[in-house]
Amino acid sequence: MKSLRIYVDLPTPPEILTLLRDGTRGHELVLPENPVASVLAKAEPDPRFATADIAFGQPDPAAIRGATQLKWVHISSSGITRYDTPEFREAMKQRGIAVSNSAGVYDEACAVHALSFLLGQARRLPQSLRTRTESGSAAWHGLRGASSTLRGETVIIIGYGAIGKRLTELLKPFGANVVAHRRKSSGDEAVPVVDERQLPGAFAKADHVVNILPDSASTRNFFHAGRFASFKPGAAFYNIGRGATVDQTALLDALNSGRLAAAWLDVTDPEPLPKNHPLLAAPNCFITPHVAGGHANEAGTQVRHFLANFERFIAGKPLVDRVM
Amino acid sequence: MKSLRIYVDLPTPPEILTLLRDGTRGHELVLPENPVASVLAKAEPDPRFATADIAFGQPDPAAIRGATQLKWVHISSSGITRYDTPEFREAMKQRGIAVSNSAGVYDEACAVHALSFLLGQARRLPQSLRTRTESGSAAWHGLRGASSTLRGETVIIIGYGAIGKRLTELLKPFGANVVAHRRKSSGDEAVPVVDERQLPGAFAKADHVVNILPDSASTRNFFHAGRFASFKPGAAFYNIGRGATVDQTALLDALNSGRLAAAWLDVTDPEPLPKNHPLLAAPNCFITPHVAGGHANEAGTQVRHFLANFERFIAGKPLVDRVM
Repeated sequence: MKSLRIYVDLPTPPEILTLLRDGTRGHELVLPENPVASVLAKAEPDPRFATADIAFGQPDPAAIRGATQLKWVHISSSGITRYDTPEFREAMKQRGIAVSNSAGVYDEACAVHALSFLLGQARRLPQSLRTRTESGSAAWHGLRGASSTLRGETVIIIGYGAIGKRLTELLKPFGANVVAHRRKSSGDEAVPVVDERQLPGAFAKADHVVNILPDSASTRNFFHAGRFASFKPGAAFYNIGRGATVDQTALLDALNSGRLAAAWLDVTDPEPLPKNHPLLAAPNCFITPHVAGGHANEAGTQVRHFLANFERFIAGKPLVDRVM
Repeated sequence: MKSLRIYVDLPTPPEILTLLRDGTRGHELVLPENPVASVLAKAEPDPRFATADIAFGQPDPAAIRGATQLKWVHISSSGITRYDTPEFREAMKQRGIAVSNSAGVYDEACAVHALSFLLGQARRLPQSLRTRTESGSAAWHGLRGASSTLRGETVIIIGYGAIGKRLTELLKPFGANVVAHRRKSSGDEAVPVVDERQLPGAFAKADHVVNILPDSASTRNFFHAGRFASFKPGAAFYNIGRGATVDQTALLDALNSGRLAAAWLDVTDPEPLPKNHPLLAAPNCFITPHVAGGHANEAGTQVRHFLANFERFIAGKPLVDRVM
């Protein structure tokens, strides 16, 4: 078969480069002269991109337009916001370019991170880790009484994809009631799926609202003041999707009013929040810096995920995590 | 049947008292004039205890000696340190007094608390919640790379009873390797059980060491310097058993030397630690104030657990959580 030009814009320390070279032998690897610092970083313009057959990284949508040989784009993140427009989708369809993302690289870690948030909230870890209170004191009874095991509590997952499915599996032994909402129900979800019309009723019953929505025109500010107003008083909100899906002013109000017991956010808008941003001082607002997908040797998982897809591409098999 | 005198020394707010009265109708409830403030508090001497048939609370072992009518003691905690001596056991056996504890009240919450610690460590929550680091920074890559999903990691549970069993169930979907150590293996544990002789080898392989040992003469300082020295470098240590089972100076050394990556302690010796105790400032030492068993309406769970056992007692059935 014809040798393919694979344009890779990722941080490529030696062991990653070796992995890539070994997995693409017989094909040409093109690496930019100024490689990006992170798998989420946008690539610099590079004339050599124009002749690539395959792009792996965060290629600029405009550059993709100019790369006439392109057959496959593999995005180095789970989020595909920059690409997820009707125009881009249509162009890819017209040109027969497959687009896949790296969801599978981060699913497991994101689901575990989400559960660490749920358990941090259930066990009141931020509060408990902060106190030396004595057994039998009012503060001690308060902490213990506010702690839970998730049993019988309701968790609603908004944006039910691979991460939500995995989170559901992890939650199974806890005896919580898990409900999901997604754009298009496949009908074979392991949990009850509520549609847009049923959302207010579902929010009114949920103790935990887990947002895993990607950022797109249809999800931006999905969590607006009206949504928070429909929440069960004392519910906790979690965001491991994207920051732009939440109206942060409305979130702040919900926290300040006490309607929301807590917010656990791995994503914000912008990231990181500016030092004086009111969410940083809001009551029970716990923020991690977009690390939900992180895990040891992530770069290795990332490249192996690409290479497994590369083998499928070569063999003409359907790609994993294909999004267009 | 003869009316029984049930001596109850617990905090008894009205709803708890109603629950108790309803569940023991036809029998006599004896409440102390100065009730204890917590289910863990030791009772004051009370002459009326001497004529009780049943004791529910933390009765003084000396008072039990003087209570000649006693047939059953139900301890209001999971820990039974004060009672767990050969002399006390022998006396109970001689006098035909059944002793049960409240393990079943706290198992679920303790197992969930332990998992919240494991996930807090796996996701580096204390570190992540403290930083606003930017995507792509060295600190950000460091945090992500240090985070894990528990998959393929080894968890050893020391003191494998009801809590350990439940923790194993909660850990099942994570794909971790769970190993257990207990005094007497029943042979039907869901996980491989290692004996005392095999412990050093097992510690050398464990990424997470979960201590659920009760306090007794045979468990005191179980985790001494030699044990910590046999740990895999970089392992994390968790204690939701009892503080006295750990040599805290050895623990401190293991944290300071970096051999232990972290310690998550729900119990210490004493509780709380004095304000200037070096463990409070030790690197990656995370302490909650003996709240692992806490959950909403704990007092209700506690009394229902006793009442279910009371029904069994009346019916001559074997008691749940019988320890002597």
